[in-house]
Order: sequence, then C-alpha cells, then structure tokens
Amino acid sequence: STTWTEDLDPLRPLLQLCMDRYYISPGQTNAELFGRGMSCSYGPLGMELRRNLLEQWWHSVTSGSRAQVFGINTLSSSKDGETDGGGQVRMVESEKLKQLLQQDVSKELILQDVQALLQRSPSVRTHLLQGALEQFLPSLELVNRKLPFGLAETGLCFQPSDGSGCPAEATQTSLVWFCSPRTSSQWLDHWTRQRLTWWRKFALSPSDFSSSDVPAEELVEAASRGVRIIYNFPWGQEPLETLWSRGDAELMQTHKGARSKLQCRNGRKTVPHVISVTGNVDRGLMAFLSNSLQLLKREDSKQRLQQRKVLKLHPVLAPVKVALDIGRGATVELRRVCEGLLQEFMEAKISVWPGYLDTMPTSMEQLNAKYDEMGVLFTVVVSENTLESGLLQLRSRDTTIRETMHISEIKNFISRYISAADKI
Amino acid sequence: STTWTEDLDPLRPLLQLCMDRYYISPGQTNAELFGRGMSCSYGPLGMELRRNLLEQWWHSVTSGSRAQVFGINTLSSSKDGETDGGGQVRMVESEKLKQLLQQDVSKELILQDVQALLQRSPSVRTHLLQGALEQFLPSLELVNRKLPFGLAETGLCFQPSDGSGCPAEATQTSLVWFCSPRTSSQWLDHWTRQRLTWWRKFALSPSDFSSSDVPAEELVEAASRGVRIIYNFPWGQEPLETLWSRGDAELMQTHKGARSKLQCRNGRKTVPHVISVTGNVDRGLMAFLSNSLQLLKREDSKQRLQQRKVLKLHPVLAPVKVALDIGRGATVELRRVCEGLLQEFMEAKISVWPGYLDTMPTSMEQLNAKYDEMGVLFTVVVSENTLESGLLQLRSRDTTIRETMHISEIKNFISRYISAADKI
Repeated sequence: STTWTEDLDPLRPLLQLCMDRYYISPGQTNAELFGRGMSCSYGPLGMELRRNLLEQWWHSVTSGSRAQVFGINTLSSSKDGETDGGGQVRMVESEKLKQLLQQDVSKELILQDVQALLQRSPSVRTHLLQGALEQFLPSLELVNRKLPFGLAETGLCFQPSDGSGCPAEATQTSLVWFCSPRTSSQWLDHWTRQRLTWWRKFALSPSDFSSSDVPAEELVEAASRGVRIIYNFPWGQEPLETLWSRGDAELMQTHKGARSKLQCRNGRKTVPHVISVTGNVDRGLMAFLSNSLQLLKREDSKQRLQQRKVLKLHPVLAPVKVALDIGRGATVELRRVCEGLLQEFMEAKISVWPGYLDTMPTSMEQLNAKYDEMGVLFTVVVSENTLESGLLQLRSRDTTIRETMHISEIKNFISRYISAADKI
Repeated sequence: STTWTEDLDPLRPLLQLCMDRYYISPGQTNAELFGRGMSCSYGPLGMELRRNLLEQWWHSVTSGSRAQVFGINTLSSSKDGETDGGGQVRMVESEKLKQLLQQDVSKELILQDVQALLQRSPSVRTHLLQGALEQFLPSLELVNRKLPFGLAETGLCFQPSDGSGCPAEATQTSLVWFCSPRTSSQWLDHWTRQRLTWWRKFALSPSDFSSSDVPAEELVEAASRGVRIIYNFPWGQEPLETLWSRGDAELMQTHKGARSKLQCRNGRKTVPHVISVTGNVDRGLMAFLSNSLQLLKREDSKQRLQQRKVLKLHPVLAPVKVALDIGRGATVELRRVCEGLLQEFMEAKISVWPGYLDTMPTSMEQLNAKYDEMGVLFTVVVSENTLESGLLQLRSRDTTIRETMHISEIKNFISRYISAADKI
C-alpha cells in the first residue's frame, strides 16, 4: 500500500471537495487519516453517507443474503486481551501510571508495579473476529446446533502504529461464517461473489472493483485460503474487504479445545470451519466517493468553458436526496410551502437539504454547482408559479434536465426513483 | 446511584430473561456491566433493540425535531487529549512501554521517557461534547452563521474506573445545541420537554420516566442549570439523559478565545451559549426492558397456575416483529410457504424470526411462552389449511388473541400496525 504524502496529487481534488462539501472535517491531520483509509472526523454529509453504507452492508449480509446471519455487538476492549491482537494496545489510566513511576522505591519494584498495571488494563481490539468466536457457543442454541450460520457485527477497532506510538481508529464490518469443513471452500467462493456483487451494485464504474486471491506468502497464520476485494484508486490498488478460510484452530483455541461443546449436527458431528469476511468502512466510503466523482467540462451562461464536478453517488448512498430552494416570489409564502414539503419528505425518511433557509443571494448556476459537488440527487425549486398552479421545478443531478412537476407528485416520484435504483 | 451487588434481587429476573432470550451474552461479568448501565456484549435481540433505539433517538433529534440539527462523527481518541477529560485514559502500546522500562539507564531517564510516551499516546474520550465544540466552526458555514442549530452524534465513550484501573465502555447519545444567550433558558426547557416526551412515547408505564432539576451542589463546573431525565428502576432511580446549560466558556476555550470567529448573526453579534443533551444508550435500553417486562399469572391447558413473562416492548423498538412457524401438514410445502413470507417481510424491512427452521418438537404453548419472553409482536402459523385456503393463524403478543388472516394481507397488516404505533 502507498503512503499518502508520496502520492498527494491524485488524492487532492477528492480531498478538497470532501472538505468543502461537509463530507470530512477540515484540517491536514484529518485529511491524512481519511486518505489512509482510517476513521476520521466526518461532517454531516460524510456521516450520513457512512450511515447509509453501514445500513446497506448490514442489510445485504443479514436479511438480504438468504443465509442465517445474526447480529451481535461485543465490547471493544477486554480484560484478558492476550488472545486478541496480543494485547498490543492497552487503555491505561495515566494518573495511576504516573503515581507508580513517582514512588520512592527501586527500579525493579517500579517495573513490577507497572507490569501489573498493564496486565490489569483492558486491551483494545484490533479486529472483530475474536468477539464472534466467543459468541459461537451462546449462538449454537439459536440455530439448534445446525450449520451453516453466521454472526455479523460492525464496530470500532484500533490499529497499532508502525512505530510512531500513536494507534489509529478504523471502523470494521465483520461476518464470521461457521460451516462444515467440506463446504468451507464453496462458502468462501459464495461470499466472495456476494461481496463483490454488493460493492459493484453501488459503483459508477463497477470494473474498478475486483477480487483477487491472496498469494500463499501473504496468508495469515490460521488461513488456508484468502481473497481480497480490491478497489482501483487513482493512486493504486487497496483492499476494501478480505475473506479468509480459517479452519477450526482459532475456534478451538478460543473455547480451550472443548471439542464436544463445539460440535454441530451436520450429518455427522463436526467442529465447524470458520470463514471471516472483514471490511474497512472508512476506506469503502472513500472508494465510493472516488468512484463517483466525475470531472466534466461544461459551458457557463456566458459561453466560458468551466469544469463541473459531480459526485454521482448511488441514489441509495447519496447523503442528501433532495435540496429544497426558492425562486422568485413572496419569500414568506414560498418558505411556508418549503416547510410543508420538508415535513413530507422527512416523514417518508427522504433526507432533505433545507436550501431555502439560506439567505445569501446565489445564482441558480452556483447553487447547482454546489449541489452537484454535494452529490444531491434532485433540486426542487418552489416559486411564484407553485403558489398559483402547484407546479414546481425539479432538476436531476445525473441528467441536469429540469422538469416541471406537480407538488402533490414529488414525494412519490423521488421515493420510487430511489427504490427503483435499489432493486437494479 | 446504587451498586449492583448490593441490590441484586430486583434485577435478577430481568437479567436472567435477557441472558436466556438472546438479549445479552451469558456470563457474570457481562451481566454486571449491563446491570451498571455500561456497554456489554449483546446477543442478536439486544443488538437489534439497540439499533432500533439509536435509530429512533437519531430520528427524533435530527429530522423529527423541526430544529436545524446536523449529524457528525468525530474520533473517539485524540492526540492532544488534555482538554477532553484531562487525558485520564490513554491508549498505550504495551510493547513500547515495556521496552522503555527495560532500558539500562537511571530511574529518572526512564521516568522522562515514559512521560513522553504518555504524552504521545492518544487519550480516549469520556464524552462527545468536546468533539461537537470543535466542529462548531466548520458548521457555521452550513447555517450561514445563523442561530440556533445543533450537532448530533452517537458513539463509544470510556469511563475512567473508580480506582480499579479498569475503564469501562459506554455508548452515548449527544446533542449539542448552540443558541443566543438570552434564549438558552427557554431552549433548555424545550429540549427537556422534547426528551421526556420521547422516552415516554416508548414506555409501557410512562410515569416511571420523569425529569428533575440538578441541585445546585451537583452542577458541573461550566453549567448554570441542569436537568436529568430519570427512570425509576425497581432498585432505585437512575439518570438516562442529562441536559446542561453550559454558557460559552467551553466553546471559547476550545477555540482559544477567538471571539470574532465564533460570533453569529443573531440581531446583534453574539458568541452562542451551549446546551448539551447527553444520554446513556445502554442504560436507556435497560430502562425499556425493565419497563416492558410484565409478570402475569395464567392457567395452562391443564388448569395449573403458571407465571407468564411478557416483554411488552413498544412495536417500534421490539427487535423481532414476527415469528414464522409451521403447524400440522406436509413440512416441505409449509416451509416453502414460510420462505416466501420471510422474503416478503424482509423486503418490507420487517424483522422476522425463522421459527420454522427449528426442528425440535415444541408445543404451541411452549413456543408462545418463548416468544412472549423474546418480546415478539406477532406469531404467524402456517399449516395445512394455508395450503388449501391461503388462511393462516396470527397471534398477538399483547392480546394473546389468535385470529385467522389471509396470507396476502399479513404483510400490510403488520406494517400498518407498526406505523400506527409509531404515530401515536
């Protein structure tokens, strides 16, 4: 993988747009975290995009997959952290540590005390796998000891630093799939197809998403096979999700080899094999942003050639579906119409941008340019005409075509548009 | 607040049910965390209940409140943690610390090195307020410098231990509201009413939820007034959400007193006052579970008096809306019918429990008892009759009444039932 500072240029237009348009919070450190595919501080639009992405992932893995998958929610820190990530990063109460160091005793005694404090301090997780392995036993009753089934979770994990002493955060998605040993290879293929199809579903250019087998020398210890879902960023390939066929060693180790407890009814009694599917939400989000950013040439109203930036995010993922604005006419009345529409959209859970509240004068051209960069699907303009005839203007981000529509039809039109895009 | 071990008894029936019915993972430590209102390891039903709760909170504070509230997502750790919680808990790489301690140098040098490592190690947040205060400036552009507006966030926080050296996790909800100084008192009242109404909306006995002013001696440093939303647990009162009127001191401090940057257009130029609304998701979840658990006497089919436990969670919160089971008839065909229904429910985003997959023989009575403890809203039984006439049996958790319904009507019936409950 590449470091951000080396290959700054291909990333810059995307980063700038993300900071300007409320996807990520401003600041160099924050942009660097984002660029490296780590969790960063997100603005309102980034936050909503992330929610949508997590929601879609969850739906596709649990209810949408026709497989038996249950959700769980485990802790991000544990007291006996030696099994998970080797207890690399620990949450230490700094006052306690300082007190120990300032004792007036020998170096050896201080060393012992600090070691004991470290041992007591919870270690933070680096992945979600361990939590799911621990939940295997309580879940067996749920499925009546029948294979296959899966446990899904999304949550915060911490990555140890590469020597800087400063661990970073990453939000992961995890599906841990338990199946019979003889079917594990087929299931790995099944989930690889399922995951790749999912990523491509939301892509503007699906061929930028691909899968590739992990070379033998890069296999993690427990794994016999691995597959990566890869995105082709302008600055190189990066993995978004990784699938491993892990056998039963880790499951046995987690449950201290209690083979009889782990056995499932599956024709004969077997300890299941484990397939893990681990994704990086923050890098996935960046992949979709990068994939959907189009730089287009266009002529402005004075025939000057300008660059038009459009964030063509999939309708289901787009954080703002509709922007509501007002044109010419009596401001007070037009705003009242907008408020009614706003309420109607919100009740239908369609996210709206209340552009009509903005009191800064802007041309329609500037407004459209801004909304295109925000990835807003449709812009609705309420004007004098609306008060007279109920007709308003609707502009599409993707076609840039403006059409006239009756105010009573607008909510259903947009609802249908989004759910049609969801079903393709 | 009470400690769990002292007042074990009133909590035990709830804890046992939560462990038996997949709300929380088994184990004494986990049950203790849950009982203390901290994050614990959740099973599939607890996980889904938590999702629903967070979703409802989010909706009520952002789109449902008619106020301008934007979502944000900040980091749970920060490098310059001295401002947030005083950097009490830090993420330390334990190998690095051990290396420093094992150096063959003087105690003083080791001390210096360890202090420097602590300084570099990110501190974890104890609350979400600081993140929102930092996002105030980038958000000003969004609202065109106009007050009032709010920033909402939900996320993981860490509570320092009371001397044990072992910090605990808690998931918080946070609304940080920026308003003009002269309206801050009214806004505190507004949000208190709004929050109390929200908690009561989902309660079986709303009077168990109340609000009370924080006594002067318990006010946090920055606050001039505080209100707590309290739940009356069987073992005593505990706060679920706390509102503080905090003035402008912390906002000024976060932005190093840059008054001119912070000023908003609000008649005259003013630095806004801050109102914080902070909730504990895990304790809120326990409040709703405790509130909805009913212990009823009932006669079984042999006229023996038995205790019936029903988890009467609000239809919107209930983690499982429908259980699908099969009665008498050709199993293969009946299962096929169930699979069709399952798909239909899932597409409508109605969570289903695939009871028909269970191959253990159970009486309908046992099944109903189990589903009542799980809080399942409706049980649908597909039988021979369904294959002939399309009619199935529908049992309601709350009325225990069984009715016959045509298979084509079932999905819409349940959809309408849930959205009607949502609108009350």
